[in-house]
Amino acid sequence: MPSAGVVIIGNEILTGKFADDNTPWLVARLRQLGCDLFRVAIIPDTLDDIAAEVAEQSRRYDWVFTTGGVGPTHDDITFAGIAKAFALPLHHRPELVAVLKRKLGEACNTAALRMAEIPEGSELWWDGNVTFPLVVTRNVCIFPGVPSLLRLKFDRVAHRFVGAPVHGLRLSTGRQESEIAALLTEAVSRWPAVAIGSYPRLDEVPVHVIVTIESRDNQALARCEAFLRAGGLTDAP
Amino acid sequence: MPSAGVVIIGNEILTGKFADDNTPWLVARLRQLGCDLFRVAIIPDTLDDIAAEVAEQSRRYDWVFTTGGVGPTHDDITFAGIAKAFALPLHHRPELVAVLKRKLGEACNTAALRMAEIPEGSELWWDGNVTFPLVVTRNVCIFPGVPSLLRLKFDRVAHRFVGAPVHGLRLSTGRQESEIAALLTEAVSRWPAVAIGSYPRLDEVPVHVIVTIESRDNQALARCEAFLRAGGLTDAP
Repeated sequence: MPSAGVVIIGNEILTGKFADDNTPWLVARLRQLGCDLFRVAIIPDTLDDIAAEVAEQSRRYDWVFTTGGVGPTHDDITFAGIAKAFALPLHHRPELVAVLKRKLGEACNTAALRMAEIPEGSELWWDGNVTFPLVVTRNVCIFPGVPSLLRLKFDRVAHRFVGAPVHGLRLSTGRQESEIAALLTEAVSRWPAVAIGSYPRLDEVPVHVIVTIESRDNQALARCEAFLRAGGLTDAP
Repeated sequence: MPSAGVVIIGNEILTGKFADDNTPWLVARLRQLGCDLFRVAIIPDTLDDIAAEVAEQSRRYDWVFTTGGVGPTHDDITFAGIAKAFALPLHHRPELVAVLKRKLGEACNTAALRMAEIPEGSELWWDGNVTFPLVVTRNVCIFPGVPSLLRLKFDRVAHRFVGAPVHGLRLSTGRQESEIAALLTEAVSRWPAVAIGSYPRLDEVPVHVIVTIESRDNQALARCEAFLRAGGLTDAP
């Protein structure tokens, strides 16, 4: 299955100036695609942070998705950070320069051209016959931070990240977590292909524990479910 | 100023089973306290991920706040991960064992006692005369993942993380980002103590750019503001 990591580049998120709408959207979308997300890092707009996080995620996962920092102003340093991650030079990519000049005309100044200055050897993905392609450096897909743009651009290339779907369901109990811990531990050891999570819902009335079970193996999932139901778990409210 | 990182430990967030309410709350709360947040990592419930992320953040920041993974079930391995980060052994801490036994009585089984099995040498913070103290290993404060509990426990110790407040404001322009880029770059170089961010609001009508300026130095902030207003920026809508 494809594995993925997400890098949210943005001081504005860490300082609470804007809400991070991109993480929840990417989490849900990747799940839907069957692409396994292993890590989200929200980091500042600094070269070293971007380079270190991108290099590490690129090594560990099939795909890395970055958001933010691709505009024309001083705080847009994502391309430079990714270039640093792979020790690649930056260059003005002719196809992107052409697009910007066509689109902006007179307004295409030095600042605007920074949007065409990308790591050498990057791929340009034109999926969906777009005007401005997605820039992909090695396995790192570089998305804008503006939520509507991210969604539009992501959906055009989403077919590239599809994996087998994960099936799952939620069970519940009114007992305490510690009382069902042994049951869960046994289920974990019997069905290693099933991911089991236990989540006390102390904020809800009546207080209960949600137990989630998930797998790509439907047979294992069904057996694990039957075992837990026999142990007293019921449908989640 | 105190610096901080956050580690959100939870498969349930990465797989989209539950929304991450803790990151936005911590972001806002730390800002309010004047504690500078430099990184949020959302990671799976695996020993090596927890150990690596906690060790790295502990080295870089004054404080690390973890959430999640402190219950009695198989997927609660935060204490073990933090012990691994610092190569500390785990032990059943007598004060915590006593609290659990008093609180749970008969129900205090082996699973429940895992909540008392913490890295050796951890501090227990009893701020607010609580029944169950906060466990702090070196500079890592270990919070529960349940949002209401996290908030309650965080607020009791928040006075320990207070820094000087950051002041800031938002300006706006209807011009394109590339047209104000040179102005912003000049402001950045003139007032290094001011953090300047530029955020195109392409999802809003009319389309505009929000420019945020922030600083702990009020005089620099006022000068930078005047400079940007002279350059054509106005109050944000």
